[in-house]
Amino acid sequence: MIVSTTALLDFLLETRKHSETLCKPLQIEDYVVQPIEDVSPPKWHLGHTTWFFEDFILKKHKPGYKEYNSQFSFVFNSYYESMGARVVRTDRGNLSRPTVNEIYDYRNYVTAQLKDWLSDEKNLTPEIESLVEIGIHHEKQHQELLLTDIKYILGNNPLLPTYSESFQENKPVSDSQKWIQLDAGIYEIGHEGPDFCYDNELSKHKVYLNPFEISNTLVTNAEYLEFIEAGGYEDALLWHSEGWAWVCANTIKAPQYWHTADGVSMHYTLGGYKPLNLKAPVTHISYYEAFAYAQWRGLRLPTEYEWEAAQEHFNWGERWEWTESAYLPYPGYTKAPGALGEYNGKFMVNQKTLRGGSVATSANHTRPTYRNFFHPHLRWQFTGIRLAK
Amino acid sequence: MIVSTTALLDFLLETRKHSETLCKPLQIEDYVVQPIEDVSPPKWHLGHTTWFFEDFILKKHKPGYKEYNSQFSFVFNSYYESMGARVVRTDRGNLSRPTVNEIYDYRNYVTAQLKDWLSDEKNLTPEIESLVEIGIHHEKQHQELLLTDIKYILGNNPLLPTYSESFQENKPVSDSQKWIQLDAGIYEIGHEGPDFCYDNELSKHKVYLNPFEISNTLVTNAEYLEFIEAGGYEDALLWHSEGWAWVCANTIKAPQYWHTADGVSMHYTLGGYKPLNLKAPVTHISYYEAFAYAQWRGLRLPTEYEWEAAQEHFNWGERWEWTESAYLPYPGYTKAPGALGEYNGKFMVNQKTLRGGSVATSANHTRPTYRNFFHPHLRWQFTGIRLAK
Amino acid sequence: MIVSTTALLDFLLETRKHSETLCKPLQIEDYVVQPIEDVSPPKWHLGHTTWFFEDFILKKHKPGYKEYNSQFSFVFNSYYESMGARVVRTDRGNLSRPTVNEIYDYRNYVTAQLKDWLSDEKNLTPEIESLVEIGIHHEKQHQELLLTDIKYILGNNPLLPTYSESFQENKPVSDSQKWIQLDAGIYEIGHEGPDFCYDNELSKHKVYLNPFEISNTLVTNAEYLEFIEAGGYEDALLWHSEGWAWVCANTIKAPQYWHTADGVSMHYTLGGYKPLNLKAPVTHISYYEAFAYAQWRGLRLPTEYEWEAAQEHFNWGERWEWTESAYLPYPGYTKAPGALGEYNGKFMVNQKTLRGGSVATSANHTRPTYRNFFHPHLRWQFTGIRLAK
Amino acid sequence: MIVSTTALLDFLLETRKHSETLCKPLQIEDYVVQPIEDVSPPKWHLGHTTWFFEDFILKKHKPGYKEYNSQFSFVFNSYYESMGARVVRTDRGNLSRPTVNEIYDYRNYVTAQLKDWLSDEKNLTPEIESLVEIGIHHEKQHQELLLTDIKYILGNNPLLPTYSESFQENKPVSDSQKWIQLDAGIYEIGHEGPDFCYDNELSKHKVYLNPFEISNTLVTNAEYLEFIEAGGYEDALLWHSEGWAWVCANTIKAPQYWHTADGVSMHYTLGGYKPLNLKAPVTHISYYEAFAYAQWRGLRLPTEYEWEAAQEHFNWGERWEWTESAYLPYPGYTKAPGALGEYNGKFMVNQKTLRGGSVATSANHTRPTYRNFFHPHLRWQFTGIRLAK
Repeated sequence: MIVSTTALLDFLLETRKHSETLCKPLQIEDYVVQPIEDVSPPKWHLGHTTWFFEDFILKKHKPGYKEYNSQFSFVFNSYYESMGARVVRTDRGNLSRPTVNEIYDYRNYVTAQLKDWLSDEKNLTPEIESLVEIGIHHEKQHQELLLTDIKYILGNNPLLPTYSESFQENKPVSDSQKWIQLDAGIYEIGHEGPDFCYDNELSKHKVYLNPFEISNTLVTNAEYLEFIEAGGYEDALLWHSEGWAWVCANTIKAPQYWHTADGVSMHYTLGGYKPLNLKAPVTHISYYEAFAYAQWRGLRLPTEYEWEAAQEHFNWGERWEWTESAYLPYPGYTKAPGALGEYNGKFMVNQKTLRGGSVATSANHTRPTYRNFFHPHLRWQFTGIRLAK
Repeated sequence: MIVSTTALLDFLLETRKHSETLCKPLQIEDYVVQPIEDVSPPKWHLGHTTWFFEDFILKKHKPGYKEYNSQFSFVFNSYYESMGARVVRTDRGNLSRPTVNEIYDYRNYVTAQLKDWLSDEKNLTPEIESLVEIGIHHEKQHQELLLTDIKYILGNNPLLPTYSESFQENKPVSDSQKWIQLDAGIYEIGHEGPDFCYDNELSKHKVYLNPFEISNTLVTNAEYLEFIEAGGYEDALLWHSEGWAWVCANTIKAPQYWHTADGVSMHYTLGGYKPLNLKAPVTHISYYEAFAYAQWRGLRLPTEYEWEAAQEHFNWGERWEWTESAYLPYPGYTKAPGALGEYNGKFMVNQKTLRGGSVATSANHTRPTYRNFFHPHLRWQFTGIRLAK
Repeated sequence: MIVSTTALLDFLLETRKHSETLCKPLQIEDYVVQPIEDVSPPKWHLGHTTWFFEDFILKKHKPGYKEYNSQFSFVFNSYYESMGARVVRTDRGNLSRPTVNEIYDYRNYVTAQLKDWLSDEKNLTPEIESLVEIGIHHEKQHQELLLTDIKYILGNNPLLPTYSESFQENKPVSDSQKWIQLDAGIYEIGHEGPDFCYDNELSKHKVYLNPFEISNTLVTNAEYLEFIEAGGYEDALLWHSEGWAWVCANTIKAPQYWHTADGVSMHYTLGGYKPLNLKAPVTHISYYEAFAYAQWRGLRLPTEYEWEAAQEHFNWGERWEWTESAYLPYPGYTKAPGALGEYNGKFMVNQKTLRGGSVATSANHTRPTYRNFFHPHLRWQFTGIRLAK
Repeated sequence: MIVSTTALLDFLLETRKHSETLCKPLQIEDYVVQPIEDVSPPKWHLGHTTWFFEDFILKKHKPGYKEYNSQFSFVFNSYYESMGARVVRTDRGNLSRPTVNEIYDYRNYVTAQLKDWLSDEKNLTPEIESLVEIGIHHEKQHQELLLTDIKYILGNNPLLPTYSESFQENKPVSDSQKWIQLDAGIYEIGHEGPDFCYDNELSKHKVYLNPFEISNTLVTNAEYLEFIEAGGYEDALLWHSEGWAWVCANTIKAPQYWHTADGVSMHYTLGGYKPLNLKAPVTHISYYEAFAYAQWRGLRLPTEYEWEAAQEHFNWGERWEWTESAYLPYPGYTKAPGALGEYNGKFMVNQKTLRGGSVATSANHTRPTYRNFFHPHLRWQFTGIRLAK
């Protein structure tokens, strides 16, 4: 931890405010719905990030703190088995109360309590500092989910309403494609140093890599269209067995949010419903699709080690990049004790690691060692493809 | 049809207004959610009843009518296969748009167009009169669903918010229980005359009934508690095979909305969360429960014919009363041609008939020949039990 | 009960033997499988009908009876909640043991014990007589299920093996179609007299019928083909709402066991895989299909009362005939006490009544008052259509 | 490939014969059933391994070969998308035909055809040699599945029949537990040389390992009982999130095949139903259980690289040992072209690698580089736990 008290408090307040800014374009109704299990209602994100500060910091550490509403813990707990009963995840979209305004009141109360308490430097012990920091980063993660969940909510509505015309998610891939070569050898992987990181990035350790090449650019929509037009979605041999079952069961024929209207390819974006931007990096594809695309090109996805070893040599941050690596503990990984130990470790099975960051990732949130993870069939995040060989 | 033009228009406007009055106590968020498939979002009811008038009357019959929004037909069609594509029923709660305010604008537009057009007496042909009348009764049916769906939405929220303190749903059963005896013989069943009725009530026909007795009162919460305390929910032999499977799969132990808190029996009502009213008629029970209760008493439910033959001799209207009858066509029943033929006939399988009406039924909506119908496992309506032998 | 001791014993032994005769053409493997929940393995039928005699008669009434194998009760109980734990229905096809030979040994043991005991006239009290009689009729019901389940097992095997070339299930409809007219009035419905019947046929009671006409013949395959060719399976308006959902979910396009090979219509029969017999009565159709067919013809299905009132005027017994009636208790119906009370009454919800009998029905099993019942979507029985208007 | 023609043919005939020897103790009925999707009927294994030789070798390469039965390809194809239509996996247990005897006839025909053809040395080209060899190893894999599937079929039958009293699956762990230490450094992992291996073991490559310790013994039933008695199955924090959901949904409380009868711990084994052998290695546990057990001990599972690097220092072969590694392609892995390319690669997602071998593994089938793989929830294989730290 290297920031001063004032800096940490500013960072906290700015983060709290940013979540609210992201929701500005919404109608009350948009805050409420949960069209699929993975997509939480925006009001739930606003309440849950607040509950996190209240439950892990204020209730446990601030002397005389008065809980805002004892039932909110039940409503806004996400998955912490050790923190008591909670609304089952699939029911979040069934709750009309507390209302959006009541949740904003709750946010304001908790933010004010934090501000009041943390303004006094002597309260900012290393333990509290560390908890506040994890609370900030937790909220930043939910900021990205706010954007991807809002996209799902609006982008699956038959009226296809625009979120914000100024939101630019499709910067063209401007570099010409080249292969970056790395030699065989031992590389150091993982986080080291005083800056914040999650426990799953620790600790720095050696990995032996064979020689490999990795692309400096992401796969574009134009390139992905070639795969579709060549029958990629009809050729079982390009797919994992489970990927093929997923394609068939869901009649998948294109990335999520793609439409064909009168023969024209369109896609829904947070900036509105628009003709498909061919130069933009392909997005909203599952790992299964990323793998099948690479197979079809006679190439492959990089491992997360290759990605981290090579990442200084290319630009990243537009799309979460599927890697071939499964999300597993690094050597020496141990879970933190108690509820915060539930943050990462218990998800280390049946998921794939993604690296980089996306247009929806909050400022100062990602880094070269950051390990994101999703199940291989999921597509509602801003995912993308970088090839290796 | 016996009302004058003015009377019909007044009836229409009053009906349109009443739907909105029922929603007055709601927060915007309450309009949006669909916690189970059977419960539609209140905003959907407001839109769907409006679409009905627009699609069946204005678009087809009013010269030069300009459709409000061509996509609303897709959003607000309920089940009319012959009226085009529609949002699947389970997705109604995933739609944040159109917003509540946009739907009120749509309502106002359609109501104004109807008012404008129907004010001119010459437009009120018998066909239009009949369509307007069915539209009014259709909206009245949805008014009852509005109340039962709102009860489900609020009554399944962990905060148990009150809908309206003035809503009285539990009038005590004041009469002392007696058996009304009817002789064997031929009775006339079904609707006759110029007043409005649905096609499923037509036509008046003869039915032979054996001698029977029917109770003048509904079963009370106190009486139903005896069944629970005697182990009624644990004795398979009291239940239908499918009823028992339903009890086991859903761990049913009491009527819906009953709670036990610190040993005290409570129930959620539209008037708030309250101690169980022992003298009120039991409600929110499935047909399976009604049947098992009667078995346990050594009695039975009446058929719908017995109910109709005897109904002059008792008070009814507090609860929809499950009958032993399956919902089937009367002799000579024929479906109306086209989309309105989908109103009733296609539901005549696997459902039970209910007779009477409930505290949630709109004024002037029910009558002695009215045939309501639900699947035997459903409980979210204000259902109740009248015994026979 | 009107037969002598010897006659009853002969009837019993002949019935026991007939079940075994029906299984003669089977390979051991055919006795074991359960391709869908409704179809039980033939060896289960052989064991279950034996268990019925052992559990309801020998164990309870024969002094000193030694149970054959105490675990068989768990294996061969079907649905009697009051008779203890049992293998769940969907698991019957997972049990390779007891083997077929072990089950035949069990049958022989129980049959011999019955024969030994019942040969002594003084053991044949009225109670035992009545139990033996119900056991015989119970086994006859399972004989029909043996045939329909064998048909399902072989007819869904890709090799389409023949059961027995001598089995004739498709006698042509030879009479020319006529309408039989019945007058309005009170008819007596239900069983009366000393002969055996099930409790659901009791007691004889009066029903008022409106004037109606009923066909003297069953609908033929040729007539049903017209419905298919006219697009009957694509027109939602002909179907119940639940029927249409069933058609869509299962992509139903023809009766069960129909195939099209190189443009020729074929059907699988117990006598082998053959060209469709156009003059035979259509079979293996659900109630939904029977109803839709009648709608398309502008006609309807008879009620079970109409069927019974008119049945003397036409031939029946080739197909179980779907009626429009729901399977409900007759006036005055009461369940027998104890386990035998579970025989019929607990199925009286969500099922339709079928009347008549089929080519698979055992001799001396059906009668004019017999009430068969199945869920409306089921097709594996030899069902058929008789029209009314 | 290092064996002579005669040796290869002997190896083939001996392998073919062994599959049949394994089935000797079965009753015909045991060959037929499929109690869960993962467990195939023994007769299917016998047919499928035969089809593999017929379809990949005889039909393609033996001049003038006459196919035994053209429909068997549909019945016995397992998952080769490129080899045509096939019976869906869940339907294998619904097929009573072909009978067991017909399948033995099919086996004999194909074995004789192979013997006849391969006896002539000039037919044994390197391509054919390689195909025969993969066919042999394919059949050996199915021999292990025969045993584990038979165990499931008999061990889930309420009669708990013994497979073979001479089958010994529970050799006590006799060594005393010690920790084997390995230094950090680069290790060579994977197969090299002329002996047979699967494509997923290729090619030999360098891996950097941190210093680690690995146990010389497998976890015993006695040790696992301590975990159960300490409440391991009730403590959510020991489990992966998906593991905990699996425990709750299936009410898992012990390894598969464990029973408690009158307070005594018993387990079903292929040698019969017996008191739990406390000194034997624990078996039939899922990866989730292996992981939770290790967490509870404050230890972990080894990676597959650690296992391979250390395996010379301990005995293995009693149980398939869950590793922490996901089943992923080695560097440079490429799928074979055509149908054989479907053998391994398409399963490389969402599965865990297991190393070693089990009491059910056929002779000469496993090796230090062998990579077995299963989904993390599966337990019907002879799986076990070796700890690391």
